[in-house]
Amino acid sequence: MTIGLIGVGLIGGSMALKLKEKNFAQKIIGFDKSEVHLLMAKDLNIIDEITTFENLVQDSDLIIIALPVEATKVVLPEVLDRISDKTVVMDVGSTKQEITNIVEQHPNRKNFVASHPMWGTENSGPKAATSEAFSNRAAVICNHEDSYDFAVELVKQVYENLEMNILYMDADKHDVHTAYISHISHITSYALANTVLEKEREEDTIFQLASSGFSSTVRLAKSHPEMWVPIFKQNKENVLDVLNEHISQLKKFKSALEKENFDFLEELIVNANRIRGILDK
Amino acid sequence: MTIGLIGVGLIGGSMALKLKEKNFAQKIIGFDKSEVHLLMAKDLNIIDEITTFENLVQDSDLIIIALPVEATKVVLPEVLDRISDKTVVMDVGSTKQEITNIVEQHPNRKNFVASHPMWGTENSGPKAATSEAFSNRAAVICNHEDSYDFAVELVKQVYENLEMNILYMDADKHDVHTAYISHISHITSYALANTVLEKEREEDTIFQLASSGFSSTVRLAKSHPEMWVPIFKQNKENVLDVLNEHISQLKKFKSALEKENFDFLEELIVNANRIRGILDK
Repeated sequence: MTIGLIGVGLIGGSMALKLKEKNFAQKIIGFDKSEVHLLMAKDLNIIDEITTFENLVQDSDLIIIALPVEATKVVLPEVLDRISDKTVVMDVGSTKQEITNIVEQHPNRKNFVASHPMWGTENSGPKAATSEAFSNRAAVICNHEDSYDFAVELVKQVYENLEMNILYMDADKHDVHTAYISHISHITSYALANTVLEKEREEDTIFQLASSGFSSTVRLAKSHPEMWVPIFKQNKENVLDVLNEHISQLKKFKSALEKENFDFLEELIVNANRIRGILDK
Repeated sequence: MTIGLIGVGLIGGSMALKLKEKNFAQKIIGFDKSEVHLLMAKDLNIIDEITTFENLVQDSDLIIIALPVEATKVVLPEVLDRISDKTVVMDVGSTKQEITNIVEQHPNRKNFVASHPMWGTENSGPKAATSEAFSNRAAVICNHEDSYDFAVELVKQVYENLEMNILYMDADKHDVHTAYISHISHITSYALANTVLEKEREEDTIFQLASSGFSSTVRLAKSHPEMWVPIFKQNKENVLDVLNEHISQLKKFKSALEKENFDFLEELIVNANRIRGILDK
């Protein structure tokens, strides 16, 4: 099978490496608006061939769109305009509602499968790609009833080859859950970094003292705006909803401290500790 | 040298394992209010011998107090009351101001060295101890001018054997910096866990979808209240100061989203990205 990869960064690159390793893809052809990334991806054996957008759409059995979510909204309809009956198109974006909405009425909608492999790092670009990325993580396939069965089946095989756990979910539900589980973590981490940068003017001290705990909570603050501004934009309502809750949770800690109500503080922490039982099942 | 370990949990246990591995300690005797932890520590070869508080103080060349910081405030003066001229006493607590204040006027103050090895995990107890804990992390020695030179020298050797980078700092400065670098991370993480637990009633969904990003920001929320309530209590003013800043940073994200001011959102993220340059020096 020939796979056409639109976007040869962290996610697309990592998928390509694994799908070639598994021999699921015989040939991977790539297109990216960044010439530098394309050359890098060829060098790193992420893609076998650099091609044009038109040739990629024409020559691929499966097209993977691995772009920031605002770009996906533009490129996906352009791809669907040009594909053959048998071509399957998938995206891998962190939001699903706006992306599925935009192609809802497209005559080739059923060739498209909306999905989201839940993995990422704070790094980006083809150099950050790794074939060990996705194992044992969740891959969500959304609104599968709007896609051809053969298309869903192929995308399922993609995620099986990436060794992911496949879940089916409505796009609107997906966007609610990812606001809780993923998007708010990034806002928290960005805000934490900005807090420390605002309060701690001695950068050397940050560097010298940074504990593993700090590094862990602030890791996501290294993530690029090119990816995250579009996600927050598309998932604005859900993210705002969770962000409001998060601010009110922080205010409980503030109130407990201000009033020296250490029993309440303990209660808040004991409640938070429940996350251990859920994550370490 | 015989080391007396008061508190055989994660931090004390990890120090003991490494100091024995390095042959810095010939014998480690232990005391803990938990009989279960003492037996566990003996089983795990963290300590060679279980002893009483009185015998530990009498028989040790170096006494390491590795207790939650409120307990340290009680135990430290009791230890100093009973030591010989040559005994060195160190603590390893995450706050330094109240601990140094409480023994400021003690006749044996100079036998005590206040310090803080900046490492920890979300786990606790002797079973979580590991000899690989401290390497390349910062160890802060506070108010060293209030201690005998020979005492500071010995504690310096302890941290050198733990392969840590030693910094000297005033206790008040230490508490300001750790509020930024460590304590606020824990509050953020607790509040994030409480947010998700409040909003996301489907625990299975949290478990299934939890991305590496979420796990990373929420990891510290597993940390026990026994350790953290006392830290927040002792460092209340500094923590509140940073917490207020953190809430106002989060409100900037909220405002950018509400007003759909995506340029401002990008600006906030670009600023947060600066943490990469500082942490990855």
